[in-house]
Amino acid sequence: MQIITVTTDFGTQDWFVGTMKGVILGLAPRAAIVDITHEIPPRDIRAGAFALAASYGHFPKGTVHVAVIDPGVGSARKAIAVQTANYFFVGPDNGVLSFALARERIKSVHRLQKRNYFLQPVSHTFHGRDIFAPVAAHLSRGVPIRKFGAAQKGFVRLPWPQPCVRRNRIEGEVVFVDRFGNAISNIENGRVNTRRELEIFTGRKRLCQVKAFYQSVPAGQAVAVPGSTGFLEIAVNGGSAAKRFRLKIGHRISICWR
Amino acid sequence: MQIITVTTDFGTQDWFVGTMKGVILGLAPRAAIVDITHEIPPRDIRAGAFALAASYGHFPKGTVHVAVIDPGVGSARKAIAVQTANYFFVGPDNGVLSFALARERIKSVHRLQKRNYFLQPVSHTFHGRDIFAPVAAHLSRGVPIRKFGAAQKGFVRLPWPQPCVRRNRIEGEVVFVDRFGNAISNIENGRVNTRRELEIFTGRKRLCQVKAFYQSVPAGQAVAVPGSTGFLEIAVNGGSAAKRFRLKIGHRISICWR
Amino acid sequence: MQIITVTTDFGTQDWFVGTMKGVILGLAPRAAIVDITHEIPPRDIRAGAFALAASYGHFPKGTVHVAVIDPGVGSARKAIAVQTANYFFVGPDNGVLSFALARERIKSVHRLQKRNYFLQPVSHTFHGRDIFAPVAAHLSRGVPIRKFGAAQKGFVRLPWPQPCVRRNRIEGEVVFVDRFGNAISNIENGRVNTRRELEIFTGRKRLCQVKAFYQSVPAGQAVAVPGSTGFLEIAVNGGSAAKRFRLKIGHRISICWR
Repeated sequence: MQIITVTTDFGTQDWFVGTMKGVILGLAPRAAIVDITHEIPPRDIRAGAFALAASYGHFPKGTVHVAVIDPGVGSARKAIAVQTANYFFVGPDNGVLSFALARERIKSVHRLQKRNYFLQPVSHTFHGRDIFAPVAAHLSRGVPIRKFGAAQKGFVRLPWPQPCVRRNRIEGEVVFVDRFGNAISNIENGRVNTRRELEIFTGRKRLCQVKAFYQSVPAGQAVAVPGSTGFLEIAVNGGSAAKRFRLKIGHRISICWR
Repeated sequence: MQIITVTTDFGTQDWFVGTMKGVILGLAPRAAIVDITHEIPPRDIRAGAFALAASYGHFPKGTVHVAVIDPGVGSARKAIAVQTANYFFVGPDNGVLSFALARERIKSVHRLQKRNYFLQPVSHTFHGRDIFAPVAAHLSRGVPIRKFGAAQKGFVRLPWPQPCVRRNRIEGEVVFVDRFGNAISNIENGRVNTRRELEIFTGRKRLCQVKAFYQSVPAGQAVAVPGSTGFLEIAVNGGSAAKRFRLKIGHRISICWR
Repeated sequence: MQIITVTTDFGTQDWFVGTMKGVILGLAPRAAIVDITHEIPPRDIRAGAFALAASYGHFPKGTVHVAVIDPGVGSARKAIAVQTANYFFVGPDNGVLSFALARERIKSVHRLQKRNYFLQPVSHTFHGRDIFAPVAAHLSRGVPIRKFGAAQKGFVRLPWPQPCVRRNRIEGEVVFVDRFGNAISNIENGRVNTRRELEIFTGRKRLCQVKAFYQSVPAGQAVAVPGSTGFLEIAVNGGSAAKRFRLKIGHRISICWR
């Protein structure tokens, strides 16, 4: 059983994702297709890259991960497939794969050029269906990655904001806001010891302390916890930290110890 | 082929559900995973319990039902697996399983304690991925339920509002509002004979009559019908009863016969 | 491996779709069930017909397509199954299948009458679960279509607005607005040559030119492109044409050449 995951900004109100699955199952009838999410904000390559990076590693070795956040569809932007030590990745070469790839040992990167692996005719507006779905299906059936086109050296990387470690604080920023209104930071859990007294600030405003889990504080109160993606996140127990503090992606925060 | 259903409040905009599926398929590659819904309002244990109770019984014997509406994740709340005459249930012991379990013959209830069946390390914020998904996968592969931890006698039960039968009326309340704005009551279909003249009231305000189906009344008109979950529901043919009458969960209604 | 696709207006916040899948898997354990969409606006038969027509043809031969946008559930409206040269279709006979069927060679149309193929008892409000899901499962397992009920000649067809070709322009209209705000017209791609100078108007207001793909124009600018469903669509590169021009289904547009 071969697994193919799909991450897009196609939403679920139209037929786009279903159509991709039809194409995949036509070529790889035994594939198990798993949706990561299709609710990436339209054209938000960075959010798609984050969702893929947060999830891909929990799939079995050999899984094919397809990500289609593709505002440049039909233009000259390249399409690629990447083989790493554990997985395959397929998508436009616009950075959407780059946060995941940054954690993987890359074996090879190939352009998607061979039209015999595509749906015919290839539209100018829906490469998810016409290129990425069939290539993922072929990869899952064992077609070697070099068959799809020429090898290339690198791939487009989105800049990842590194947190900045000072003498008595770490300066970071919000990199994602999830459905619960939890604001996920770029500060790795490993940098934080929840047994010490730590406080989170935005500018000079104190937001909350760092604790082990949401219910370490009474309902309605804010708290920062080591999150499940490996990064510290700011939450409100039973509420939305993003709403309470108007936190958005890019918002600067800092952890201070006393 | 083993079926695992998943009911959560995780939404579909993030990677949470996809990640759970990755964990499940890594342990039980042949499992068929079915989403009940992930749009339970955040932390609404009661709504999750209702959705599970409304759907679980339509799955084949042996299905493993996982429900993760888990505001207490990481705290001292217990995690359980329950074996009934027909199914397995897995989730936090906070009542989310209780409406379904109330209809089943319970065979045993076990705490989830044995960490060798969990993902390592277990986060404090995402037991759906780290505990419930792997336990469901192991159960679906035939690991006996007693292996996961000590047996316990009961489980947390949410109170279910019983309708009150008076001489000339039944007093009940709204227990769920669905996507179409139909307000589902706690009054069982069996108590209602659609061939008699019955009327639905909220307080002294008459809402509608009871009929066999939505289109028993002209478009735009209200009607109460025996619903597909086994309970009477208030609807507007072609519209939303919840909007029309501002019906919410807990809203008291009564059926009167003349 | 048999594929069953499901298109509904049930939304994903309730348990309706999950329940249908439970019923299907109970009867056809090896079926691969694919969601086209469940976000068809409630009771919008036309939008459901369009989504099905846009996607069904990308599935392998033999796929069973179920569409349940069914405002008349429980009333006298008929339920049908249709066999075409390539597929099976199952749904209410209210037009929801008709845009897809218009492109297929019909082999036979049968009413769904034989209650032994339904879930018992059949509710008056949820034929998706009680009739369409089990019939689809039985079809996918090879039950001959004539077993479900009497053959009938035709089926309900929704009117499809034909574009009107004039001397120096084509007059059409918007037939769908997708998640990105692209307004899909009823003017087939084949009528349009993107190498000629073409302009799109609504009334006397010029909207944009016709080009090969979205990024043929700078970000924020409008453009019409041959769309992936086979019809010309009006888009804004990086934005929403529907919002910019307040385009809705039925909005009249025309293509003019100079």
